[in-house]
Amino acid sequence: MLYTEIPTQRPVTPLLDEIDHPQQLRKLDQSQLLAVADELRQYILYAAGKSGGHFGANLGVVELTIALHYCFNTPTDRLIWDVGHQAYPHKVLTGRRDLMPTIRAKNGLAAFPTREESLFDTFGVGHSSTAISAGLGMALARRYKKQPCDVVAVVGDGAMTAGMAFEAMNDAVAHQADMMVVLNDNDMSISCSTGGFAKHLAAIWNKGQSVILNEDGQAVIEPHPVWEYTSRLHTPATEEADNLFKAIGFEYYGPFDGHNLDQLIRAFHAIKQRKGPRLIHVYTKKGKGFSPAESDPIKYHAISKVVPTVTRGLPPLKKPIPKYTDIFGQWLCDEADKDSRLLAITPAMCEGSGMVSFAKQYPERFFDVAIAEQHAVTLAAGMACEGLKPVVAIYSTFLQRGYDQLIHDVALQNLDVTFGIDRAGLVGEDGPTHAGAYDYAFMRTVPNLVLMAPKDENECRHMLHTAYHYQGPAAVRYPRGAGLGVDVAEDMTLLEIGRAEVVLDLNTDLYDEQITILAFGSRVAPAVEAAERLSHQLNVAVCVVNMRFIKPLDHELILAKSDQTTLFVTVEEHAVMAGAGSAVNEYLAAEAILKPVVNLGLPDRFLEHADHRQMLHDCGLDAEGIAHSVVKAWSKVMQHI
Amino acid sequence: MLYTEIPTQRPVTPLLDEIDHPQQLRKLDQSQLLAVADELRQYILYAAGKSGGHFGANLGVVELTIALHYCFNTPTDRLIWDVGHQAYPHKVLTGRRDLMPTIRAKNGLAAFPTREESLFDTFGVGHSSTAISAGLGMALARRYKKQPCDVVAVVGDGAMTAGMAFEAMNDAVAHQADMMVVLNDNDMSISCSTGGFAKHLAAIWNKGQSVILNEDGQAVIEPHPVWEYTSRLHTPATEEADNLFKAIGFEYYGPFDGHNLDQLIRAFHAIKQRKGPRLIHVYTKKGKGFSPAESDPIKYHAISKVVPTVTRGLPPLKKPIPKYTDIFGQWLCDEADKDSRLLAITPAMCEGSGMVSFAKQYPERFFDVAIAEQHAVTLAAGMACEGLKPVVAIYSTFLQRGYDQLIHDVALQNLDVTFGIDRAGLVGEDGPTHAGAYDYAFMRTVPNLVLMAPKDENECRHMLHTAYHYQGPAAVRYPRGAGLGVDVAEDMTLLEIGRAEVVLDLNTDLYDEQITILAFGSRVAPAVEAAERLSHQLNVAVCVVNMRFIKPLDHELILAKSDQTTLFVTVEEHAVMAGAGSAVNEYLAAEAILKPVVNLGLPDRFLEHADHRQMLHDCGLDAEGIAHSVVKAWSKVMQHI
Repeated sequence: MLYTEIPTQRPVTPLLDEIDHPQQLRKLDQSQLLAVADELRQYILYAAGKSGGHFGANLGVVELTIALHYCFNTPTDRLIWDVGHQAYPHKVLTGRRDLMPTIRAKNGLAAFPTREESLFDTFGVGHSSTAISAGLGMALARRYKKQPCDVVAVVGDGAMTAGMAFEAMNDAVAHQADMMVVLNDNDMSISCSTGGFAKHLAAIWNKGQSVILNEDGQAVIEPHPVWEYTSRLHTPATEEADNLFKAIGFEYYGPFDGHNLDQLIRAFHAIKQRKGPRLIHVYTKKGKGFSPAESDPIKYHAISKVVPTVTRGLPPLKKPIPKYTDIFGQWLCDEADKDSRLLAITPAMCEGSGMVSFAKQYPERFFDVAIAEQHAVTLAAGMACEGLKPVVAIYSTFLQRGYDQLIHDVALQNLDVTFGIDRAGLVGEDGPTHAGAYDYAFMRTVPNLVLMAPKDENECRHMLHTAYHYQGPAAVRYPRGAGLGVDVAEDMTLLEIGRAEVVLDLNTDLYDEQITILAFGSRVAPAVEAAERLSHQLNVAVCVVNMRFIKPLDHELILAKSDQTTLFVTVEEHAVMAGAGSAVNEYLAAEAILKPVVNLGLPDRFLEHADHRQMLHDCGLDAEGIAHSVVKAWSKVMQHI
Repeated sequence: MLYTEIPTQRPVTPLLDEIDHPQQLRKLDQSQLLAVADELRQYILYAAGKSGGHFGANLGVVELTIALHYCFNTPTDRLIWDVGHQAYPHKVLTGRRDLMPTIRAKNGLAAFPTREESLFDTFGVGHSSTAISAGLGMALARRYKKQPCDVVAVVGDGAMTAGMAFEAMNDAVAHQADMMVVLNDNDMSISCSTGGFAKHLAAIWNKGQSVILNEDGQAVIEPHPVWEYTSRLHTPATEEADNLFKAIGFEYYGPFDGHNLDQLIRAFHAIKQRKGPRLIHVYTKKGKGFSPAESDPIKYHAISKVVPTVTRGLPPLKKPIPKYTDIFGQWLCDEADKDSRLLAITPAMCEGSGMVSFAKQYPERFFDVAIAEQHAVTLAAGMACEGLKPVVAIYSTFLQRGYDQLIHDVALQNLDVTFGIDRAGLVGEDGPTHAGAYDYAFMRTVPNLVLMAPKDENECRHMLHTAYHYQGPAAVRYPRGAGLGVDVAEDMTLLEIGRAEVVLDLNTDLYDEQITILAFGSRVAPAVEAAERLSHQLNVAVCVVNMRFIKPLDHELILAKSDQTTLFVTVEEHAVMAGAGSAVNEYLAAEAILKPVVNLGLPDRFLEHADHRQMLHDCGLDAEGIAHSVVKAWSKVMQHI
């Protein structure tokens, strides 16, 4: 069935309702599976509409998920989903059907497979390209324990370009590990797949042949028909293609029609009899079965909750507040317009990083390097060596993958590379795998690097401009989501490097005692709100500083403020440990300034997914929480005065 | 010529003496190059003998280096050496001949190519597998600037397995970049190469054919003769091999005899006429021309300075002090002996990490995953999921490559993985690329992780034991080089998690004022020595604490000490920024303990190579430096009392 709307009422799913464990699926007759697939697809449409979240990839793997759980003895056999953008059907079939509408909500199901949630989630994911490594670890462990089982890692074609996947394949061959990699080839990552690997898959495809196992267990080649969705985006290769997987030492099977249950089941049953590393190439369509997503898979990679019909048709009251991502995208275009040396790099996050306009406007200056964070950073280093000015757009959590390259290739050589670090701090529903809670810590320890965080979207623009014009590595880290709704200047102003800004001075004429709040990035605004409350509540002067720079820290301002300050407070949307507040402590220690300091930030644990605002509240990092902490600290201080 | 001894007298090198710029090399007649190669090899033998350092790889690329500089217009054409273990001949031919004996010494030439040192060093290296990314960046930049030039990245076969190289190749094809990758295939990284890629190269080799360009610029296949050094270590493939480089979209040429100057020059001249991404497969022999290195290339990967003959024959006075690496290796065997769940993983550093005995004793529990740090960490996570207890041996600086995996795959899932982190702190002659100066910062911010540093080799053994038995991720970081010479207990003792140890209390009965030195890892011993000096020099009690745990920090002890302490000092072989001392500051702030603190550690800049001891001295981190800093701080404190 091809659906055109997301149902808001729970669909009727009699077969699905009986499946609380894949064992029940496996008891069904193969002829019933088509109906299961139809119910499952409807149910996913409904549940994703309720919760929002990843969408297209889930619809694309309905048949594949059924076939896998039908053919393999899960959870005893190990099934590992890479990235986890496609795990909804898996969750439905493994006892979590009725909880699906809670996905991504506080205390609800996680967006991704999580070991804590289910025995069927053999490995927690979120970042891409880990599944082959994890699966290989399991396969080798089981071999060593003499408890062999089937191990199947399901990896998208987009995730295959990450070097880690290649490292794992190389090693699987070294050990002749008994494992299967299912290459779920939908010719996309979140954006369109790019690079030699994508072309290679296209070339394999265009041969019009499948490698299958016949009844005697022999690999034979048969023609594959032209399936309805075979139109790949790439030019076919003109000559016979060498096979990359065979070259590295895997047995290669496929390509198979990923929506043909009978074909998939036949293939899995045959191939699981073999030993050693095997790759099973399956072609699926992202958004399959839902026509809007089939036509625009990038848009439907993820969706928001379906809005109740009652608000439909009402015109929005005012212009929506731009996201930081949009601010970055606009700045990038504006800066590029003025400086032809600007080149922009993204590791497969063109849309997520707000680079669609730039890519259209400056195609020859836009480099989507695929999911390849290590390469993205060093590519920028190479460009900088030639006197150009590369900008790397990357999420905080994914920069963890390019950390060595940031130190070794960029900072050590003091190269002129600008980093736009998106999704820094908490990220709400995507949960701990995607939080950017550690970037201050891992970046501020790196010599030569300048690191900033803006108080609002307008400052973000100026900071990006400042970072760009700084002659060396410089980064701006900004949060997920919308700005504060302030006016964004068209002009761009260079900020003085390492210079903070006092944003509020309250009661200074009334009291001698002062609380000085040193706020970083997204926490400046709630700090200001907290300060206003405090100025009414306590008999004390309150000063709020927008620190702007995590590195170099504005020592001068801290020193100047220290005389009149009775209590310092630092606040940041980042782990307290080794964070920006910690940098303030270091300076105070170095100057032997003995003043009480309260460091506010994220606690030392991984935070489960919830609404972003809610999470900040729970961590005491909204205005209320900040004020509460300061009052508590102040009362302690007053006891000692 | 095949040499058998390292000359201690400078060899006579009339041709080489005339080459101060490759331009002069390019003016020579091709028939003279054989003599140049012979002189260059002799000179490398002599210079490496003087300075110590990387050896085998340098001897292996003598002809290749000459051919590259002969065929390409360096430095206008961009030549990028990957890793840089093989850059000595390059340095000799590019104006640094007479400085070669200073290599690795303070103020001498760097061990690796460095942009600051020469225009010919187009990209600073040290870590592996960056050259294709950097070269691609240069090629794309030059295309964009409409200033095309030839770009050649020289990459070893060992470095090709790192995912980053694959990411870069994928991207080079996406952009059809005009660049050449010279695959310097010596069938080794530092150890023997491993994995599917190594088998693949063997399979290509064993076909006995080379792809070359004929005079019309057409790729043709010709048989290649059996060269003297063709005996690869791997089993030949039985069937026609698919070509990985062609699969990913590179043009493939070779394999060529990497010691045949005429063949190399003919190949480079022909292939440089082509466009797009091209791979040139060259086979070389590590240690070529020096018979001891040809027979044992692992031993001769790097050498120590040649010892002056006068000390020869004297028996060593006592047993040499074991290195921390050896302590790790011995512990690994001992623990494995007791617990069959232990598996050990190394990313291509079997020898460097002290795992040779373990690998021999427990081959089925030893996993050399090739240069693949990302994969190494997640492989361990997968093994831990199956209830086994993997130990990952990794250098601090290389763990930067597995940082995301440490957070996302291990710590977030609280998996039971042990990390033995070698070469932590400064590393002396290898310089800033190999320093492990940031691991406290990037690790202590990660939830669930336990992080320790031993005061001596005996404690290192107990800490490894403790980390191993901790039910979750735990790491021990220890320095490069020898321990202190203390007795190492055969038994292994579990340390209490998060419990520090007071190692010295001086003058406590004499004075009320106290300096408390909180020392971490390698800085405990010099702190003790400094304390003894201080106790004579100042009228104050001095206490030294071996903190043992960076995370969790021993809050109880710090709190207990704080009453009697007038001045806290923290000292560590790690950046001050975000380091262990910073963790102490955070705790003191959280408890509102207002005491002066001095944080001693590494400064916020990359430190050039020098002798390890010298570097520590220069940073004020030996006993003398610590004492000096404390005296200075103490005099300030006394002014305020």
